[in-house]
Amino acid sequence: MSYDKLVERVKKISNIGNAAGVLRWDQEVMMPEGGTPARSQQLATLSSVSHELLTEDETEKLLDEAEPSDESEEAVVREVRRGYKRADRVPNELVEEISTATSEAHPVWTRAKENDDFEEFAPTLERLVELRREYADYVNPDVPRYEALFEEYEPYLGLDTAERVLGTLREELVPLVDDVLGSEVSYESLEGIDVDEDTQERMVRDALDALGYDWERGRLDVAPHPFSSGTQFDARVTTRFGDDPLDALTSTVHEFGHATYTLGLPDDEYGTPLGESRDLTVHESQSRLWENHVGRTLPFWEFFAEKFNEATGADVTPQRAYEAANSVEEHNPIRVEADELTYHSHILLRFEVERALIEGEIEVDEVPQVWNEKHEKYLGFRPDTDAEGALQDIHWSHGSFGYFPTYSLGSVLAAQLDAKVRDEIALDEKTREGEFDPLRDWLRENVHQHGKRYKTDELIERATGDELRASYFVDYAEEKYGELYGV
Amino acid sequence: MSYDKLVERVKKISNIGNAAGVLRWDQEVMMPEGGTPARSQQLATLSSVSHELLTEDETEKLLDEAEPSDESEEAVVREVRRGYKRADRVPNELVEEISTATSEAHPVWTRAKENDDFEEFAPTLERLVELRREYADYVNPDVPRYEALFEEYEPYLGLDTAERVLGTLREELVPLVDDVLGSEVSYESLEGIDVDEDTQERMVRDALDALGYDWERGRLDVAPHPFSSGTQFDARVTTRFGDDPLDALTSTVHEFGHATYTLGLPDDEYGTPLGESRDLTVHESQSRLWENHVGRTLPFWEFFAEKFNEATGADVTPQRAYEAANSVEEHNPIRVEADELTYHSHILLRFEVERALIEGEIEVDEVPQVWNEKHEKYLGFRPDTDAEGALQDIHWSHGSFGYFPTYSLGSVLAAQLDAKVRDEIALDEKTREGEFDPLRDWLRENVHQHGKRYKTDELIERATGDELRASYFVDYAEEKYGELYGV
Repeated sequence: MSYDKLVERVKKISNIGNAAGVLRWDQEVMMPEGGTPARSQQLATLSSVSHELLTEDETEKLLDEAEPSDESEEAVVREVRRGYKRADRVPNELVEEISTATSEAHPVWTRAKENDDFEEFAPTLERLVELRREYADYVNPDVPRYEALFEEYEPYLGLDTAERVLGTLREELVPLVDDVLGSEVSYESLEGIDVDEDTQERMVRDALDALGYDWERGRLDVAPHPFSSGTQFDARVTTRFGDDPLDALTSTVHEFGHATYTLGLPDDEYGTPLGESRDLTVHESQSRLWENHVGRTLPFWEFFAEKFNEATGADVTPQRAYEAANSVEEHNPIRVEADELTYHSHILLRFEVERALIEGEIEVDEVPQVWNEKHEKYLGFRPDTDAEGALQDIHWSHGSFGYFPTYSLGSVLAAQLDAKVRDEIALDEKTREGEFDPLRDWLRENVHQHGKRYKTDELIERATGDELRASYFVDYAEEKYGELYGV
Repeated sequence: MSYDKLVERVKKISNIGNAAGVLRWDQEVMMPEGGTPARSQQLATLSSVSHELLTEDETEKLLDEAEPSDESEEAVVREVRRGYKRADRVPNELVEEISTATSEAHPVWTRAKENDDFEEFAPTLERLVELRREYADYVNPDVPRYEALFEEYEPYLGLDTAERVLGTLREELVPLVDDVLGSEVSYESLEGIDVDEDTQERMVRDALDALGYDWERGRLDVAPHPFSSGTQFDARVTTRFGDDPLDALTSTVHEFGHATYTLGLPDDEYGTPLGESRDLTVHESQSRLWENHVGRTLPFWEFFAEKFNEATGADVTPQRAYEAANSVEEHNPIRVEADELTYHSHILLRFEVERALIEGEIEVDEVPQVWNEKHEKYLGFRPDTDAEGALQDIHWSHGSFGYFPTYSLGSVLAAQLDAKVRDEIALDEKTREGEFDPLRDWLRENVHQHGKRYKTDELIERATGDELRASYFVDYAEEKYGELYGV
């Protein structure tokens, strides 16, 4: 009885969160700019109402009285209790303040980036950093502030795992990147192919069709910073179009991976933790797996090159497209357009900057300089502008600090899952034939359908038979790039 | 102190309502069909949370303790108390049930209409009618059920006013329609001009530009059943494209009128009754005023014909467009495409059918037959299909009964406002010059800026110096159509 009442309450909270998700999607994709003041207030109210519902004494009472009758119900209680404990420590006013501040920050960041004017964003960023420091002190006073924030996005792996993984990548990958960039070999991107936006859109829609995206439960739109959001009934993707049609494609395949995870959550658990995805590391593993281990492979291009040529009027061979999709560029400052090797250098620098910022080791006005120094250290050059540097990413304007490391954790997990999948499915062969259902079904069975049933570490152990290790990614990268670049 | 707390609470409730508005806009315009189950639950939760907040004892306490210090604060308390009283009488479960049922009804109605299959919609409609009868018994047990529902959309004019106005229209307008249709004169529509959807869209965007629609606070999309929604910061319009480009135009100008009202509400009162529109009669007066008293006039076409021709490649004279915009068709079964005369016949029949249905005088399975009989009585013919008959309108699928009469009340008020405006502004001259600011400013000053400060009857009296009378519309119609049709 108490358990059922708990679930009813949890579903209500979840519906408010999903409603807020629709409002945020709309804000990024559809809303006219003038709408911000009202939208900020709407989102702040939803945050606050949801926070109140979660932290009411009644929730604790129901949690204490709930007698879970099986493993599923135990998982639900575990996840709700975790959420309750964290939320209960944070005053409602702070939750509302953060929500209002982040809504208001978005247009400021957008304009500052357009104007390449870090100063314009600085006061807003300062406010967000202060609010998040305060939040960290409430939500988990027992750990350093950055760790408390990191746990918001990855609750079970621990910041030590992140440090271990990022440490390995720093040691093993940065030298590999050096070798690759120092080699005689280089591959040109497909930027030269002149493809307008409508054509690119047709091409990425073809890709989504081929991959099996469920249009009955999704849609594709354009957003300046592509993302995916929604529920198992309505998981939308966004993309953007620039000079290189491969950027639009990989970005779309990436978001398709996110949406496929969301769509694989069980319908009848909508609104409970069993119908919700297992946080950001696992989510990112799904997007990276489709982006890198499917979309950037030769077999994929043996299948897709023809469709790509048909849609765009280009005339590329599978080998040429494969090489372009894996060209390691020496001077690319943009994270979301990075190849899968230098990508981690972008993450390393962000991780170090935002950690120092939250821990008070540096202040906001030092950010561009520190950013640029670390950029030089990890990527070998300095970005020309702050728009291509410290203003580049949307995350901080969302008040999200501690989020970036989950990108590398996710990539690493993708490689680990890929290795396991290939033990069981002839993935290259299937990909070459344009058959993506076996992979999706495997992921659905081993990852998607479980929602939050298992803690992240348990889920990884059950799906791959091993704990999370960066070595799978390093092995994969050394083999692939060794062959491509003769290093 | 209590007053401030009351306002804080009211703003929260209003933000939840506006968030639900975004979700509904998305559902009609953007959402993939598969999203319905989750969206229904999200909307039901928002309804229920908002209903709980409004009906908590705390609200009553704050209302009793609030000491309004001026006329504005008195108006806020009056409006909140009215909302509180109505909501407090309705059990929360019923509110949630209605919300879920109406969300689920929308795709059923859509399919039934597509399949021209009333049977497919009948069980859903039956459920909605039952729920609304139950709702009426709770919300105001002292009046007939239909009246209790009508008050939901028009709180202050009273159903007796609606009966009086509709009675006058039945007596004076139906004979005028007969005369017009019996006359020698007839005007052809612009259907013959072959204009594809992109061209129509360009043309209606030009019209919105010319009228002064604020794109910074709005957007235009396509919806099967055009509507407008939002707040003073973000008031969006929708339209649809068919064979006749004038349908798209008048529909767009109509929704522009709604949006202009919304955008004219004071920014700094967002979230309070003073920043919210005065219900449906007044809202519809704004859309009708722009649609009929601007968009269907000769001076408008003297201004817009050139732009229309440029956008569409047509070659119509102002006089020809004016005649087409006011052609009274003998066999048009579609309300939203009706001319401004027969429009009221469509309303009369709906008013009588839904009233009988809610009062239990007829049951759902009799609706198509009764609809068709009344259609013959008021419009002189029977619709060929239920898709063009009883399945035509979206309203019942929204659970909205008692809404239709406000369309006629709004038209009548539009004519009354128009008469007053012309005492003060040389409206034809301004329109001919494409200057729409004077009209918008007049409406802003006399209607928009007041929000819910005055009761509907007070607002009308203040703006026009008279109580609501159908005679303004009848005079207008007799003069205009007398001249056009020589009757």
